Formats: sequence, structure tokens, C-alpha cells
Amino acid sequence: MPNPTAAILIVGDEILSGRTRDANMHYLAGELVRIGIDLKEVRIVSDERAAIAAAVNALRAACTHVFTSGGIGPTHDDITADAVAEAFGVSLDIREDARAILAAHYDRSGLEFNAARKRMARMPEGAQLIENPISAAPGFSLENVHVMAGVPDIFRAMVASLLPQLTGGKPLFSQTLRIDQGEGVIAGPLGALAEEFSDLSIGSYPFIVNGVYGANIVIRGTDPARIDAAMARLAALFPDAAP
Amino acid sequence: MPNPTAAILIVGDEILSGRTRDANMHYLAGELVRIGIDLKEVRIVSDERAAIAAAVNALRAACTHVFTSGGIGPTHDDITADAVAEAFGVSLDIREDARAILAAHYDRSGLEFNAARKRMARMPEGAQLIENPISAAPGFSLENVHVMAGVPDIFRAMVASLLPQLTGGKPLFSQTLRIDQGEGVIAGPLGALAEEFSDLSIGSYPFIVNGVYGANIVIRGTDPARIDAAMARLAALFPDAAP
Repeated sequence: MPNPTAAILIVGDEILSGRTRDANMHYLAGELVRIGIDLKEVRIVSDERAAIAAAVNALRAACTHVFTSGGIGPTHDDITADAVAEAFGVSLDIREDARAILAAHYDRSGLEFNAARKRMARMPEGAQLIENPISAAPGFSLENVHVMAGVPDIFRAMVASLLPQLTGGKPLFSQTLRIDQGEGVIAGPLGALAEEFSDLSIGSYPFIVNGVYGANIVIRGTDPARIDAAMARLAALFPDAAP
Repeated sequence: MPNPTAAILIVGDEILSGRTRDANMHYLAGELVRIGIDLKEVRIVSDERAAIAAAVNALRAACTHVFTSGGIGPTHDDITADAVAEAFGVSLDIREDARAILAAHYDRSGLEFNAARKRMARMPEGAQLIENPISAAPGFSLENVHVMAGVPDIFRAMVASLLPQLTGGKPLFSQTLRIDQGEGVIAGPLGALAEEFSDLSIGSYPFIVNGVYGANIVIRGTDPARIDAAMARLAALFPDAAP
């Protein structure tokens, strides 16, 4: 059976403007590899309701799971919940269990549970809450769309709450061999090896360091013994390479 | 007149697998801001011809420009040119001007111009070459799709060759105010300010540092005087904040 698939959707004006780099994508990609969910696509869209809704609908139809990051806080530019409700054609209202979690949190912290904070209790109809042990305001899953905060600490905590509830597949293993020769030299024998081990994914990721050309050859697959076999053949082809 | 728009498409098994982080997106996002081309979306797809072709077709219909990164080298997994030719429904053949550039480069370097390297002279019918002053192998533009290498040094050199040929718009300016208070406190007055300055984009990007909640408020727009005015109002609302 093929592994479940996933897409990540990042609501990210601050990334599209070149101001910041995303941290959540890289983290979640690593977690998904471990549990055997194949990440097929990442999209970063601007903080516009129509853009988010369109991406949610395209990705939830294409993948087993969609994970979103960002836009569920209390400020005027936090519109991800609205966009997801719109994408599913369901209503978005204050939900009592989410409201109670937030009320208890602000009561403990001695902070006012004001109108902006109450906004974070709005949930699309039919959503399941995703626990947020850091700042209380829950994320949510609606069918196969999992909506999480963008602040990296909170995103990671929500991922930790959510992933154990999902059904994974075969974890993906990989090994890397660095070859300090140009890809033009490597390409012929590497292509023949990729054909022979067509059950594995063999990627060549070139680099230039101090004017010297090289490539990291990454062999990926679900069967560690097959990866070992391919790596042994690769190392024999390029005996000067460093594992 | 609204600014031209752009999307970035990254061919990125090595990013989707969590092995590496992208560097090209962040670089190009910053360059586009400077010349007034609005980056609307980034997609990262796997190294599969159908996935690349589908993304190229979706993005070239939606944006003024599409910039791609990765997958144009000499190895078996370099299939971006094939995918772009497929997306446009045109042929992909060795082109004499590209072949001559590569032949001269390998002649100068004393390296064999072998079959793998000749693959890099294949261009979709109708493409314009993008100069590569680093490793010679050209990128190409086909209509509004600009296909560039993934190695960061080469990607940047190709961007430097390409961008002066594109028509930009009004550069986007921004200013940031860091406020060391939770978004729940900021949200009310900030939302009112965003309504008053609806010609600007006002974003709130929350953070947690050592358990303390805060947010960077970023005000973006094409008119620096309007940004100054909004920043002055924001600073007056939150007198303890640090610019």
C-alpha cells in the first residue's frame, strides 16, 4: 500500500516579502519522513482569504493530509480560520469548548479575556480541536485539513499533539554520499545505477564550494537493505567519495 | 497600475524530504520587492515531471512571471526542462547556441563535453537563454516562465542576468515596530489603525522569546510618507515599543 501523502500550506506575507525565512516547513518535513507520510508539496500564499481558501481546496483534494501554518491569532490579519470555513462552505462561530479553554487560561494568567482573544475561540463547524499546551488557543482539524499556529514553538507543540493521531506508512530512510566531482562526470554511471535500483529514489544535489564542484548523492527508500546495496555500488563507482 | 506579480516554483525533493532548507526563495523574494514585482505564491513540488508541469501551467496563468529553481543539470533526476516543454506543448532539442556556449566552456576547462553535459544544451522550442557566468550551462525563459539552476551561486547569477530585462513596478517599502506585548493586547488598536490606513498592509508577526510574548508589526506599502504617518501613529499607541 502506498504511503499517505501530505501538503503544507504556509500563510506567509512575511515570507513572500523576503522579511523572514520559514522554519515550520523544514521541521514538519522531517517529522513526516519519520512516520511514513510522504510530503508532496508546499505552498506559501499571501494573507488573503481567497488565496488561502483556493489553496486549501486544491491541496485537500490532492493529498491525504494538509497542514497549515499561521494566521490563527487574535489580530485583524489572522484570517486562516475564516478562509478554511469558506473553503469547506461551513459556518465559523465561537465554540464553547474552545472558549472555556481560553477563559481558563486567561483567568490563570490574570489577563483580560477581551474581544480579540475571544476571536481565537471561533471554529469552523465540525472541527476537532488541536491542543496548544503553550498559549492555550487551540488549532483545529477539519476533515483532512490541520490548522496550526505560525509561531514555531506553538507550531511544534501542535504537531506533537496531532501526529500521534494520524495513520502513517513506511518510514523513509536515506543515505548520502558526497562526491567531489562535477555532476557532468557523475551523471553517466549514476543514471545507470538509478535505472538498476528503480525501486529507490536517487537524487543528485550539486554544490560549489570554493570554486570546486561536487554533489551530494542521496538514496532514499523504505527498505534499508536495498539502500545499503545501492550505496555499496555507488561507493564502488566513486571510491574517493566521502560518506 | 498594479504591480506585476510573480510566483516561485522550487523543484525540491531535497527540501520536501526535510534534508535541506531552501535558500533561493528568500533571496529572490528580497530582489523582487526592490523592483516592484509582487511575489504572490511559492510552490515546492517533488522531482516528478507531471507535478512540475502542472505547477508551471497553474502559475503561469495566474502571475505575470514564474521563476523556477532546480532540476536543469546533467543528471538523470534533472527533468525541469522536459517538464516545462511538456507544460507548453513544445519540443525539447539540443540548441546550437546553447551547445556552442557549453562546448567553449568545456574546451577552456579541459573537460570532456560528454553526453550528460550535452543534455544541458536542450532547450524548449522558442526559449530565450539566461546567461550563466559561473558554470556556463544556460537557464532559459519561455514566455513568462524563467527556468534557473538550484545551486545558490548559479541561481543568484542567473537572477542578476534576468531581472534587469523585466519590467518592474513600484518598489515595496516597509517599516517594523517590535512590541513586547501579547497580540491579544495589541489587536484592538492595531485593527483600528489597519482600517484607517487601508491603503497599507499592516501585519502582526507574533513571537515568544524566553516565555515573553510579543509581535513585530510590519507596515508595508509603496508610499514611504504614508508608512511614516502610520508608524508615527503606531508608536504613539505603544510608546514603550522599540523601533
